[in-house]
Amino acid sequence: MSVAVLFGGSSYEHEISIVSAITMKKVFKSTDLEFIFLDANREFYSIDSSDMKSKFFSSGDYKKAKRLSLKSGGFYSKTFFGENLIEFDTLLNLIHGRDGEDGKVASLMEFYGINYISPRIEASNLSYSKLYTKLFAKELGIEVVEYQHLFKHSPRVINIKYPLIIKPTRLGSSIGVSIVREKAHLEYALDVAFELDDSVIIEPFIEGIKEYNLAGCKSNTWELSIIEEPQKDEFLDFDKKYMDFSRDSQVAKADISLELTKKLQESFKTIYEPIFYGSIIRCDFFVIDERVILNEINPIPGSMANYLFEDFENMVLRLANSLPKEKNIKIDYKYINSISQAKGKA
Amino acid sequence: MSVAVLFGGSSYEHEISIVSAITMKKVFKSTDLEFIFLDANREFYSIDSSDMKSKFFSSGDYKKAKRLSLKSGGFYSKTFFGENLIEFDTLLNLIHGRDGEDGKVASLMEFYGINYISPRIEASNLSYSKLYTKLFAKELGIEVVEYQHLFKHSPRVINIKYPLIIKPTRLGSSIGVSIVREKAHLEYALDVAFELDDSVIIEPFIEGIKEYNLAGCKSNTWELSIIEEPQKDEFLDFDKKYMDFSRDSQVAKADISLELTKKLQESFKTIYEPIFYGSIIRCDFFVIDERVILNEINPIPGSMANYLFEDFENMVLRLANSLPKEKNIKIDYKYINSISQAKGKA
Repeated sequence: MSVAVLFGGSSYEHEISIVSAITMKKVFKSTDLEFIFLDANREFYSIDSSDMKSKFFSSGDYKKAKRLSLKSGGFYSKTFFGENLIEFDTLLNLIHGRDGEDGKVASLMEFYGINYISPRIEASNLSYSKLYTKLFAKELGIEVVEYQHLFKHSPRVINIKYPLIIKPTRLGSSIGVSIVREKAHLEYALDVAFELDDSVIIEPFIEGIKEYNLAGCKSNTWELSIIEEPQKDEFLDFDKKYMDFSRDSQVAKADISLELTKKLQESFKTIYEPIFYGSIIRCDFFVIDERVILNEINPIPGSMANYLFEDFENMVLRLANSLPKEKNIKIDYKYINSISQAKGKA
Repeated sequence: MSVAVLFGGSSYEHEISIVSAITMKKVFKSTDLEFIFLDANREFYSIDSSDMKSKFFSSGDYKKAKRLSLKSGGFYSKTFFGENLIEFDTLLNLIHGRDGEDGKVASLMEFYGINYISPRIEASNLSYSKLYTKLFAKELGIEVVEYQHLFKHSPRVINIKYPLIIKPTRLGSSIGVSIVREKAHLEYALDVAFELDDSVIIEPFIEGIKEYNLAGCKSNTWELSIIEEPQKDEFLDFDKKYMDFSRDSQVAKADISLELTKKLQESFKTIYEPIFYGSIIRCDFFVIDERVILNEINPIPGSMANYLFEDFENMVLRLANSLPKEKNIKIDYKYINSISQAKGKA
């Protein structure tokens, strides 16, 4: 089994995607990996494993690597005599933020018939937007943090009590997020968020809340990670998250009751099935008085949350063998033919 | 100004997309049109205007047309000396159902930097799913028809009173839709819908309900169509809708009060802005006791609902001049550089 790791992208999280991909090189010990880089101009490059160092990308050296074109069936490189298919069994989508999480990569893979591990188009859109995540979770009976949604053109009348947290609806890695403790700082924080997105989510900021992360997927069976209680400062800013994305060794299990563990696992499964089939996601939950509250779905978690699994590599391989298949739609021109016949033209 | 019409697709509505595209040929009177066909195998073809007849596609003759490849900047055809860019200013996405409405076409256009008229990726996903349409509309304060959502794996316990209507969550053109008048027929109707989708929406079937359709877009200003009261039998089945997709002359205005007209227009605008920027959509509303209830959003309406507009052609051209632009994300490798420096490697 060989796996292609797709990373980079036209995204604010381009750089942490590179860090995530480099981490994969350490984590996959016996699987053949192909590294495919998508640069800021949306050109694909085949990257030699020995070049998987962050400097290779920041310096622009990657431009000397083989350019790839995406077509039916896969990625191709030009040769003297024609072109060469880059061979792999499954592609692991590791592009964080735009391109990777907004449904573009899923669309391209689906359109060109490439096996891939990633949320499908719909699941991407659901989890890329903090608003749709909430709407969908509520529909499934999962509790979410109280919120208010504002468009850029909406009147700035806030119904949430201070302190509050303002988040651009569609960005990850805490980009554009502000904690606002008093009204005087509200306008500025909204301006910052609206610079990045045309829609924001406002939530009460709850000091010292208990947070638990759980990742997993459904291959031929449920594969759930350990539950981690992430250490956090006020909240992880971009710099800290950046370092966080290079984690490659298993972390300690949170010290929680069996009952709470089960509640978190059940919530994860309810969210995952069937919308997230084919992907490895991480759900971040808050817990207040034993109530499980969904904070966020990470559709392409940093370094794929590998550090939460006992044997990440083999889980990926099992998932690769149980990916959802696109429904085959047969087009037989029945209607056109019957209408042509009715008109006496057939 | 020249417009490319993209049609076909790997979709149950492939054939009606052909009908829609042929209708465009009649509707656009002074604009250069390029026809680009996406066949069931997801190959693109450049179709000569004189070949825009349904038989050309059903017979397979289209395979003799020029094959196109999609790359950065547009569609290219092979020549003896290299390749030729198919020139147009804007692409009109006319693929109904899968590929066109599920976010794939939007993703491809966005990824390869092609100007296009169509719902963006997120708006596609919202309107492609009858469930997300409802969740989103409710969030915006728009009333929707009472419903129950079932996954294929959910227990079949129905809380809606008979008669009810069962719809696959993600298909258009009434495909897989059943009206169920008594419990004895429920299981079969659910089986039919679950053959086509892994999720269904169940609603009460309301006999003789008033329905009104309104289409439009926001170019540099609001462009709203007349409001039509569609004639309907019990509900339009696929055959009737198929014929309906070839309409090309303006229909009569519904005979409703100014007050109701305004309510429908305000509901349309609330749904449209800003999520549907760049697209021409049709919203189908029910009206009960002067209450406006959203039934459906048609993100790529049949023949683009041209028959609802006084001057469809010029509206398309105005919209083409006010399409949303993708945000430019500058990637400067600031984090990688600062970390390399901290490590003393720079």
